[in-house]
Amino acid sequence: MAVADTTDAELDAILDAADSAAERLRHAPPTVLAAQLRAVADALDANADELVPIAERESHLPEARLRAELARTCYQLRMFAEVAVDGEHLQAIIDPADPGWELGPRPDIRRARQAIGPVLVFAASNFPFAFSVMGGDTASALAAGCPVVVKTSPGHPELSERTARVAASALRAAGAPAGTLQIITGVDVGITALRDERVAAAAFTGSTAGGRALFDIANARPNPIPFYGELGSTNPVFVTASAVAERGPAIAAGFVGSFTLGTGQFCTKPGVLFLPAGHGLTDDLVAATRAAAASDMLDDRIRGRFADGLDALTRDEATATLASGATEGPVAPSLLTASATAVLDRPEELLEECFGPMSMVVTYDGPDELLALAEAFGGTLTATVHAEPSDTELVARLLRVLESRAGRIVWNGWPTGVAVGWAMHHGGPYPATTAPLHTSVGATAIERFLQPVCFQDVPDDLLPPALRDGNPLGVVRRVDGVLVAPTRKAI
Amino acid sequence: MAVADTTDAELDAILDAADSAAERLRHAPPTVLAAQLRAVADALDANADELVPIAERESHLPEARLRAELARTCYQLRMFAEVAVDGEHLQAIIDPADPGWELGPRPDIRRARQAIGPVLVFAASNFPFAFSVMGGDTASALAAGCPVVVKTSPGHPELSERTARVAASALRAAGAPAGTLQIITGVDVGITALRDERVAAAAFTGSTAGGRALFDIANARPNPIPFYGELGSTNPVFVTASAVAERGPAIAAGFVGSFTLGTGQFCTKPGVLFLPAGHGLTDDLVAATRAAAASDMLDDRIRGRFADGLDALTRDEATATLASGATEGPVAPSLLTASATAVLDRPEELLEECFGPMSMVVTYDGPDELLALAEAFGGTLTATVHAEPSDTELVARLLRVLESRAGRIVWNGWPTGVAVGWAMHHGGPYPATTAPLHTSVGATAIERFLQPVCFQDVPDDLLPPALRDGNPLGVVRRVDGVLVAPTRKAI
Repeated sequence: MAVADTTDAELDAILDAADSAAERLRHAPPTVLAAQLRAVADALDANADELVPIAERESHLPEARLRAELARTCYQLRMFAEVAVDGEHLQAIIDPADPGWELGPRPDIRRARQAIGPVLVFAASNFPFAFSVMGGDTASALAAGCPVVVKTSPGHPELSERTARVAASALRAAGAPAGTLQIITGVDVGITALRDERVAAAAFTGSTAGGRALFDIANARPNPIPFYGELGSTNPVFVTASAVAERGPAIAAGFVGSFTLGTGQFCTKPGVLFLPAGHGLTDDLVAATRAAAASDMLDDRIRGRFADGLDALTRDEATATLASGATEGPVAPSLLTASATAVLDRPEELLEECFGPMSMVVTYDGPDELLALAEAFGGTLTATVHAEPSDTELVARLLRVLESRAGRIVWNGWPTGVAVGWAMHHGGPYPATTAPLHTSVGATAIERFLQPVCFQDVPDDLLPPALRDGNPLGVVRRVDGVLVAPTRKAI
Repeated sequence: MAVADTTDAELDAILDAADSAAERLRHAPPTVLAAQLRAVADALDANADELVPIAERESHLPEARLRAELARTCYQLRMFAEVAVDGEHLQAIIDPADPGWELGPRPDIRRARQAIGPVLVFAASNFPFAFSVMGGDTASALAAGCPVVVKTSPGHPELSERTARVAASALRAAGAPAGTLQIITGVDVGITALRDERVAAAAFTGSTAGGRALFDIANARPNPIPFYGELGSTNPVFVTASAVAERGPAIAAGFVGSFTLGTGQFCTKPGVLFLPAGHGLTDDLVAATRAAAASDMLDDRIRGRFADGLDALTRDEATATLASGATEGPVAPSLLTASATAVLDRPEELLEECFGPMSMVVTYDGPDELLALAEAFGGTLTATVHAEPSDTELVARLLRVLESRAGRIVWNGWPTGVAVGWAMHHGGPYPATTAPLHTSVGATAIERFLQPVCFQDVPDDLLPPALRDGNPLGVVRRVDGVLVAPTRKAI
């Protein structure tokens, strides 16, 4: 299905509608925002049998995966409904007036966060539900009280339209203003929207090159706006000698399972495996890679980029190919190897993300080289460690290196699979993201779309509800320096 | 006193020392960080009689103001010691493993914020203590566990050196690693440091032009870093007809007092006063402006910029001069006026910040024009409203316009004077700041220098203390979706 690019006139009307909706949503009670989110989740659930086949056709992903992804998407919408009502994200703080304050009489100061305004979301292609029209960026922005304009992914145009129609209709039925959720189509249209003064913040999931270009545009505006880009990630896996001795074959199998999962089309795909010298796992790794099924990638553009990236790495004189998979038609996984010396020498080239079913094995010689390799990383969404209790001293040093580079540290597991919950952090320093303080998955993702306002001596009836004396929203607040739980809460 | 620019070799050593300190400070217990901050406050207090005269000589600010500012600076350091120990800023969240989770077995996920790494602070000239070497940016970064390199203000070089020496010595005595607090000198040196990969974040207080240039440099790095710039602000004051009727002369006096305070050298100086048609306050305003004392500005560079800015506004055909003060030698306040029509037509020119003792009076014709004028603003640090209880309907509409534009809304008061506390927000959308989610004053300023890391299935003894089962830091945490207070806390 071909969808025409949004016209200038359409975009103007869409941004006007978002702007109008922003004023109403900013002051919508959290319970109302929550009801809207739940209505969308219910509508998507109810339309699963229509949506999933479209997703299957457009993304080449299998039905079971897509049904699970839709379930996750709906769970996420309902979780953000809870987050909205919980109200901790409003970060309400009250410093009562203090005529006897040591620095002089102090006025009454009250501070809370409010919706930032219309949010532009650039959808990803690899999760047609969870990182697309009604994915985490949209859900967290709506929960914050921001209208959303989604620039759709070219990978699933029909699904984007259908999802938007189902969601917008559910939102309207739940009382949301027109303009709460809208979509736009076209690369240049997205850029025009990003430059528009009616857009207050933007979120993106995709490639480093694309994300960086948009980040630069957001910052070059006369009034720069926050741009939350989730870009590229290599997701290294570090394995100690003890772990290999204890469960080497299981690690090899788990690693191949993780980097080939979903045809390697996850931003958390482990892109490099560091094994100790003499690990003896090469045959297992090669056999498992060769045994993994070939499958279609999301679209030809992504397949082409994967083929080019793999080709460049294969031709690099520092690498050797352990298992060579097809890159035409259904794509089969490939496994390369490179020396630790080469990786330390040119980390930016050899450790750059290559999106698709490939990974690299690098053998290290002792703890010092392992730590040096960890230090070669910039930002990454995840870092995984396989170790045994006897490794504690080495691992403590390794974690100290990793925790300033990785958004999530996985212990004796695999990075693919991002549990949607309160504690999840899907972020990291650049190039993992353009905003290392923030996450695009998990409850705290809502913070990206809220800005604080403080009120000095403002009468109670003119304050936002979160800051009124009676705490009508029942949210946790810090009053005179002390966190105070509303009586109805479990805190 | 002339201070030579930091050399390349010195800068390299300084950044290496900061980098080394970062590793140690990141894991310093909050009580240790707090003790370091308190040690600095005590040392500054103890050296007040040496520091204040230097500040007086270099800044031309009066002794009483400087003593009060130093007291505020020390209060702020001690407040951030409290904030560090309180621990809410670590935002500890624990989602326990759940084998029966509806989306499939869920691992144990724990998330907390950690120090981002070395912070580069660009000091301001207008607060030689509170926004300089040991000001709010430095205090909040140290409280977060980040070492700080301060690019000093050229306005007070000797004070900067002395302050840094007193603070660094106190920090060392309190056990802080070498490299915890260092200073550098020179515009180009600051830019070189901002581009250096060892710097993880930067904070700035100063002009829009300077701050924007540095923001652009931070974003153009191969790996962009967060840049927290507090730039220009017009700080409008809106007065209703009822307020004029009730207490017009007091408003006129208060306004002139506020815009001439500290020779107008505050980022919160009210730059425009909106009065209803027929207000009858012009004579009062002019008399009070003429009666205000002349005084030296911070330095010749700032005086020159003020003179140029005032000259440009005065020559603008849309303005008229109500009171014309001297701009050579001791500077006297000036008051201009412009029509609402002109302001609505060219808000960017007529409402641009002119740093120094000048302001503008604009007469509006009815509530609709008042609201339109409020909508003409971009970001501003503050917006002030003078109104009476009978104005509630108009004021409710006005606040809705202002709260998405202003970081702080002041009711029947004046914006100069920023109370350091838990609830203060000193921020706002661009051009007030380059980071609308953040503040440079108040407890939440610490959030700028922390980034989250999450740990999946990591053994308890390898977790950061805030995330261990026993909660050894005694911080508030969200566990399984519910906020949990440590038993020793008042929450």
